[in-house]
Parts: sequence; structure tokens; C-alpha cells
Amino acid sequence: MPDPVPFLGSRGMGAMTLIASAKTLDVHQPLTLRSGEVLAGYTLAYETYGELNADASNAVLVCHALNASHHVAGVYKQADGTLESKSSGWWDNMVGPGKPVDTNRYFVIGVNNIGSCFGSSGPASVNPATGAVWGADFPVVTVQDWVNTQAALLDALGIAQLAAVLGGSLGGMQALSWTLQYPQRVRHAVIVASAPNLTAENIAFNEVARRAIVTDPDFFDGHYRAHGTLPRRGLRIARMIGHITYLSDDVMNAKFGRTLRRAVQAVRQGDTPPAYLYSTQEVEFEIESYLRYQGDKFAEYFDANTYLLITRALDYFDPAREYGGDLSAALAVAKAKFLLVSFTTDWRFTPQRSRDMVQAMLKNKHAVSYAEIDAPHGHDAFLLDDARYHGVVRAYFEQAVNTKAAAL
Amino acid sequence: MPDPVPFLGSRGMGAMTLIASAKTLDVHQPLTLRSGEVLAGYTLAYETYGELNADASNAVLVCHALNASHHVAGVYKQADGTLESKSSGWWDNMVGPGKPVDTNRYFVIGVNNIGSCFGSSGPASVNPATGAVWGADFPVVTVQDWVNTQAALLDALGIAQLAAVLGGSLGGMQALSWTLQYPQRVRHAVIVASAPNLTAENIAFNEVARRAIVTDPDFFDGHYRAHGTLPRRGLRIARMIGHITYLSDDVMNAKFGRTLRRAVQAVRQGDTPPAYLYSTQEVEFEIESYLRYQGDKFAEYFDANTYLLITRALDYFDPAREYGGDLSAALAVAKAKFLLVSFTTDWRFTPQRSRDMVQAMLKNKHAVSYAEIDAPHGHDAFLLDDARYHGVVRAYFEQAVNTKAAAL
Repeated sequence: MPDPVPFLGSRGMGAMTLIASAKTLDVHQPLTLRSGEVLAGYTLAYETYGELNADASNAVLVCHALNASHHVAGVYKQADGTLESKSSGWWDNMVGPGKPVDTNRYFVIGVNNIGSCFGSSGPASVNPATGAVWGADFPVVTVQDWVNTQAALLDALGIAQLAAVLGGSLGGMQALSWTLQYPQRVRHAVIVASAPNLTAENIAFNEVARRAIVTDPDFFDGHYRAHGTLPRRGLRIARMIGHITYLSDDVMNAKFGRTLRRAVQAVRQGDTPPAYLYSTQEVEFEIESYLRYQGDKFAEYFDANTYLLITRALDYFDPAREYGGDLSAALAVAKAKFLLVSFTTDWRFTPQRSRDMVQAMLKNKHAVSYAEIDAPHGHDAFLLDDARYHGVVRAYFEQAVNTKAAAL
Repeated sequence: MPDPVPFLGSRGMGAMTLIASAKTLDVHQPLTLRSGEVLAGYTLAYETYGELNADASNAVLVCHALNASHHVAGVYKQADGTLESKSSGWWDNMVGPGKPVDTNRYFVIGVNNIGSCFGSSGPASVNPATGAVWGADFPVVTVQDWVNTQAALLDALGIAQLAAVLGGSLGGMQALSWTLQYPQRVRHAVIVASAPNLTAENIAFNEVARRAIVTDPDFFDGHYRAHGTLPRRGLRIARMIGHITYLSDDVMNAKFGRTLRRAVQAVRQGDTPPAYLYSTQEVEFEIESYLRYQGDKFAEYFDANTYLLITRALDYFDPAREYGGDLSAALAVAKAKFLLVSFTTDWRFTPQRSRDMVQAMLKNKHAVSYAEIDAPHGHDAFLLDDARYHGVVRAYFEQAVNTKAAAL
């Protein structure tokens, strides 16, 4: 059931255009983190789309993954009233008027997690207690801490219960954690391309990325801003590693294969494809050019301390840990109904990890729907516009998720 | 058919102990590389095990992969005549008296490839023309160049034809290339855990590792030795990435899982397992400790320029390239008989890549045996002592590989 009128951010702007505007909430209540540290207060950057209904029963919270933000959908208006064409939200193909998560029906909330770097309190923001940028002094945050801050935002918005919480990857972990931390406050959880915890391999990739950042001489123990610099080398490496793991081997071969960078240029210019350059440092293959570009771009906008904190939140998430590794025991407390989606070529969060969650839910007799989507795009598939995937989410939001509050 | 008397390097030393001693060959003939550059001469470090028979027909060449050397088997004697207990060759479980490649029967040769850093000419050795360490000025070398130098070594040893050439991973690429460059000089090629070229994902991992090295401020454009330093940070990251890709997700979970480093220590000391440290930089999980250790160790002994050169040789290998991507056309020239082995959990050089080679060989009516070994260890399996794998190689060397010269 694909959207007959695709709305693709900067394209087709008109009557359907969703205008986004970021808001902030300053929370003055202290937050005790899982680590035991206490944040005296914090700021949350968030956006909302659609209208909250009279009984505040149509709210959907969207949780973000590593490098995304509260800007889930829509585009921003510039000061002169025109639209910023390149400012589409990171899940704009999923959330909006007429989209699978339809903002004509649901009041959708995106929130930037604390520890991130897009407006909420984090290592790149100012510590009110010192007047200086937090840097490495910002405390370690966990998925559970994020859920607590999201609950505080719901309180401020007058929302007692979510119609649904929705997230992919690390966002899916937050959706799962919502059903365990606040079982009465969430009727449906949609968990896409996620896992009940990271495998050793996942932790390993995170650790290499962190070491690349931490050992960059420009890292200065996390106080690089005070030194007027940024650990760009480390961030580039971290992002390159990340990108490899988000894609499948198949899609990389299809998209880049062994194509030479200069061959692409030669073909464009009508020249014969060239031989190898025989160089260890020049860009030889297209895939190298792609990765370097992604790394360079990322290093300019993403905060290195945030990278450390968010990968660590991924590593730490493990609701079964307090139950001796028994996931179904950990999920017993949940009251929500679940939709899980995984993608066949996702080797970072494999379908097996989703099946593990489904099994644990079924063992608890929770209502759970599960779709395993045959998609070539690897972990990245959760952000892409796949008709079967979007059809499943659309159907779930149209048919299963109702907007009536329920005692859970 | 596992070895009834396992010989495991430093263990069980006695009558069976194979004593290795490194030799060098100085080749004074110029070598024109695939890049067009010319090496006026070069040195090869090599070792031999067993005795060359009267008609020089029992020679087996073992080709090494990324970080190995000519020291394939046996242990070294120290100046005082005692054995260096930790000096076992990198494929000592495969090559030796009574081993699958039996040095009682075969004359086995290990050679360090040029561009490497264990005795053969490479970036860490002195350029005779300048009297200075080559550093980044050592030319880019390819699999084909290595095979040419290995052929020069055979010439010097009076070996017209190999009974077999044998290699795993990048070593397997050399074995394959032997059958294409010198079809008359090799009767059997044993290609383990290898591929006819790298996929985009493989190139991508190599590229990230290279960028980590090249962007290390201690790299100094590859002339770090002249600056009295080493790009250890970059090498550590490169090695960590490599290690992740050598192992399977399964074996990582089995070996490390989500075990906390301090939990291991606590259990050793009889204490209760601790909670998370909540730190982004301290070692929290066992897998982190393992990777850091591997990275640190590697950075002390491996040359950074060599890492660049050898990963590039991997990237460049692609015999089908000159045949418009038609692998069977590329393999038509081969005269050797083949044994290919792959491992089910090897996601770096998947069984599918071995099957691609087998198909291309069959299309050419080449004699080929193929074993797909169900092993949990990922790419690393080719170095491990798996009974089925070793049984296959043993049987092939006992029954198929004969030591009579043949006109090919």
C-alpha cells in the first residue's frame, strides 16, 4: 500500500508541505541518571507535527538513532518565509500528512536526546553550573535516561499516554524501553531494525570508532572546544566504519562494486576507462570516494563527545541483564502491543535479533506483529522508502493503533 | 584424518621439532612492476623445510597473507642452541613433519613478499640507491609482482616446477595468480579462504584502515622513521578493524559476548560481578580489552607503509579485469589442478567467492576439488587446526599432489 502521492521533502512542495519548527523545553527538575550522576536540569529540543486531540490520546513519539535529531519530518522556513529546500526531516518519508505515520491523524513528537548535539543538553552545550561547554564532563547517558527525559516532555505537553512509540535501530531500543519503564503510558511500540542488546561484534565496531576519536591528538581528553579545535580525523574514521556497517555487502557491490573513480569521470567525459593509478593514498575506487565524502561531511557537523556517549548508550542497553540474561522475564512487565520489523540484509541488527524479541514477547503472551522485509539495503533500509515496509507500518497505524486512551 | 601426534610449536618439542632458519636471496636483476616502476634489485627473506628431491619435483611454495612472513613452520634456535619457544611459524599446524603438508615428503618454501617488513625489501628496508630507508617511496606492489619475485627465488633454488603452491586469503590470490602467470610451472594450486577479487565492502574496510594510518599525525607522509616516530594510533585502529573482520559474529559472541572485563576479574577473585562502569573510554567489555591488546601488539611490530601496500595489493588483485570481468576467460590459461577450501562463517571471503572460482575453473574443464568447511571461526579459520579442513588438505597432498615433474 505505497503512498499514491509521494511526498519527498524538497520535491513537490505545495499544499502538502509540512512546515517544521523546533522548540525547546527547559526541565528544571533534577534527573538521576543510571550511572548515579545527577543532572540538575536539562534542555530538550523537540518538534511536533499534527494536532493533539482533545483527550490527548493521539500522540506518537519518534525516537532517533545515533546521528539523527528531533527534526523527524517536514522542512524549515527561512527568515524570509521561503522554505529551506534541503532541510527535510530524517524520517520525512515515514512521518507527515498522508504518510505511514499520518500527521493528519496523529500528533507526532520528535525529541533530540540529551547527550546529542542538535539542541538538547549535551557535551557541546553550556553547563549552566560552570558557564563553560560541558565537553567530556557531560555524564554518560543511557537509553533508560533518554526515556525518562522523553516522559518529562510528555508531562509538559499534557500527554499521559502515547498511542505509539516508534523507532529504528537505537530508536527501537528506546521504544522497547518505554514499554518496560512506563508500561501504562504506551499502547503500541513499533520497533524497527533493532535488537534487545548489541552483539560483541557491534560493540567491537563501536569501540574502534571511539578509539579513533579518543586517540586523535585533537581530542584533548574531550575538551577540544576549549582548545579551539575538533577531532575531525577520528570522527571521519568513526563515520566511515559506521557507513560500512549500515550497508549490505550486496548493495555496496551493486552501488559501487570495483568501479574506479577515474573510470566514472572518464566515462562522463567520453574517454576510455583508465588503468589503476597504483597509489595507496589517492582515491582509486568509487567506494573510497563515497566513504571519504561521508566522513568529511560528518566531521563538520557531529560532535565527537556525542559520538562516544551515543555509541556507549547502544553498548549498555540490555534489559535482560538484570534478569540474568532472560529477555522474556525482562519483557514481562510490558503492556503495549508490538510491531517489529527487520530487514533480511541487515547484518548489524539481524532479523534473528528481532525474532529473539518476538519470541520473548510471545512467551509473555504480548500481542506482537512481525514483518521480515526482504530488502537489499542492509541496516540503512529502515530509513528508506520501501513499499512493503512502509505498507506494513501504514497498515499498523491505520488499523491497529487507535487513538483512544486505555487503562493498561 | 587429524594428525594423531599433534605438533603444536612450542609444545611437545623433541625428535619431531622442526628447526627453522631464515635465509636471504639478493636478486640483482631489475624487476618491472605492474605499475611500470622498476626495482633495480631486491632482497627476499625465505625459509625452506624438508629436502628438495633429486629432480627438484617436490617443491611446495607457501604464500603469505597480510601480516605473516616467510617463517611458515618450525621454531628458531637461539645463539646458545636452545629453542625460542614462542617462535613457531604462522602455519606450523599445517606444515611440518607428519603435518598435512608433510615436510618429510615435500620441500616447502616460505618467502616474505617484497613490500612487507620481515626481511624482504620493503618500505622499512634501506633503498640501496639512496642509503636511506625507503619509507613511502617504496613502489606499489601487486600480487603479480610477488609471484614474479617468487619465480626468481625458484630459479635460484633450481626449481623449474612446483608440485604445489598453497595459500590462504591473500596467499590464495598468489596461488591463483601463479597458475595464470606461470601455468607450466605449477602442477597444483591450493587456494584457501580466498577470492578472485575483493568486494566493495572489503575495499571499504581496507580504505578505512589506510585512512586511519595516513591521517595519524605521526605518519609524516610515510617518512615517520626519518622523524623518529611511528604512526601507532593509526596502526592500532587498522588492526582492530582487521580483527573484527577476521572473526565471525558467532565466534565473537561465544568468545566474548557481552562479558564485562571487570566481571571476569571479579569472578577470578571470587567477588560478585560488578555493575557497568558508565565510562566511554575505560575498558568495559572483554571484547574491547581483546581488540585494544591486538592493536597495541600489532603497532609495535608491523610497518605502517607495509600495511598500506599490502592492503592495496589486495584491492588491486582482479585477474578478470583484463577480460572484461569474465573470470573463466581469465582462468583459461591455467594448467594446474586445484583444491579450493572455504569456511561457512567467513564473511570477509565468503564461500560464494570460492564457488565463483570453482565455477570458472569447471567452465574451463580444469580439475578442481572444493571443500566448504562448516567452521564457526570466520576468516581466521584458515589458520586454525580444524580436523576436517586439515584432513582435506592432508588427503590432497597425500593422494593428489605427486612429486613427479610433468609437462603442462
